[in-house]
Amino acid sequence: MPSLVHFTLDPFSRRLRLALAEYGVPVELIDEEPWEPSPHLYELNPAGTLPVYLEDSTTALSGIEAITEYLEETRATRIPLIPGDAFERAEVRRLAGWFDGKFYAEVSEPLLTEKVIRRFLRRDKGGGGPDTARVRQAMLRLRDHLDYISHLVDHRVWLAGEELSIADLAAAGHISAIDYFGDIPWADYPVAKGWYQRVKSRPSFRPLLADTIRGMQPGPHYADLDF
Amino acid sequence: MPSLVHFTLDPFSRRLRLALAEYGVPVELIDEEPWEPSPHLYELNPAGTLPVYLEDSTTALSGIEAITEYLEETRATRIPLIPGDAFERAEVRRLAGWFDGKFYAEVSEPLLTEKVIRRFLRRDKGGGGPDTARVRQAMLRLRDHLDYISHLVDHRVWLAGEELSIADLAAAGHISAIDYFGDIPWADYPVAKGWYQRVKSRPSFRPLLADTIRGMQPGPHYADLDF
Repeated sequence: MPSLVHFTLDPFSRRLRLALAEYGVPVELIDEEPWEPSPHLYELNPAGTLPVYLEDSTTALSGIEAITEYLEETRATRIPLIPGDAFERAEVRRLAGWFDGKFYAEVSEPLLTEKVIRRFLRRDKGGGGPDTARVRQAMLRLRDHLDYISHLVDHRVWLAGEELSIADLAAAGHISAIDYFGDIPWADYPVAKGWYQRVKSRPSFRPLLADTIRGMQPGPHYADLDF
Repeated sequence: MPSLVHFTLDPFSRRLRLALAEYGVPVELIDEEPWEPSPHLYELNPAGTLPVYLEDSTTALSGIEAITEYLEETRATRIPLIPGDAFERAEVRRLAGWFDGKFYAEVSEPLLTEKVIRRFLRRDKGGGGPDTARVRQAMLRLRDHLDYISHLVDHRVWLAGEELSIADLAAAGHISAIDYFGDIPWADYPVAKGWYQRVKSRPSFRPLLADTIRGMQPGPHYADLDF
């Protein structure tokens, strides 16, 4: 069975767990804590980043776009996650890149660093309480992204077009990770919320809703489909 | 004719200029200064980033991976830049991702910001002289990357394998942009230098070697193939 070296709340690992489930590929999960990466992780991926996909015991793939495209080339027999013609596929990849780059830098990296990573780091490595100014700034930027999601699904069924795509799963990987803390202002964004409810209701999502990390309970609505 | 909204020293724009030349696709260049993005850029790409590829007057594509994959799907008839089987293609994309993410964050973003962008920004927007500590740190990180390039081409013909690929062009986009300043310690990295000489000697590279930006002459060896 293939395996995935991942961290529960890592948005990129989550995207791949969703994609693998949508493709119908069973996978064994191997936990890794990104604030204390093992020497083994660097052997598998010289960049030291998560996730790493192991097709078998000898073949490790890393880099989120590399793994995403590899799975689409080899496993998209039942359902493509980069669907459509060349232009439509470019739109899927543009939006996946939006969440990987812009959303990650502005929202999920600061929130995950301040709310999770710093709890587990030793104080001399940057551990401690969250930098509340950084959290506040990320929550402001989050509102711009919820506006953008609302704008997209006002005109489309899914983020990139008429079909579910890796753009939805990339977005859901990031949003579900920060939704764990329970403070996304969903009430102000009914259209984005409707989109997220549809993604969250998919069978591929169920294992993510059962996730917990030690010492931190998820917010009360995290696993609720009618939040 | 397709066009590319670009900035001369933007590493991602450079990658696409190289790729388009390798594919044999003529393109009209439209200049944009990233420190003062025009409202038109935001209409073409809501993320406001360069480059934007215009297939024709109505179709704008943005996001570096989205444009890269689009061109490979539609223009790689003579020469593929993501060659090989699914595993080999994953290795090409992993390395392109390495330069897009890690090299950019550690080396090209700080060097370009400190050495170029801050010269052109108004002082109240962060303009001024370079932060020398940031430059020094980026030059240290650059050495790690030159080691990694040396390691790769010790075992391979090109960065990702036996054939030229988008990984080489991604790396060359970043490295050529900072080589403009003339302070890459090439003498300490003969193997990486050999690889860069081979890339630099390709006809696709010639227009980049003629580039200049206002008020900044390139280093004396920038355009020299026997640097």
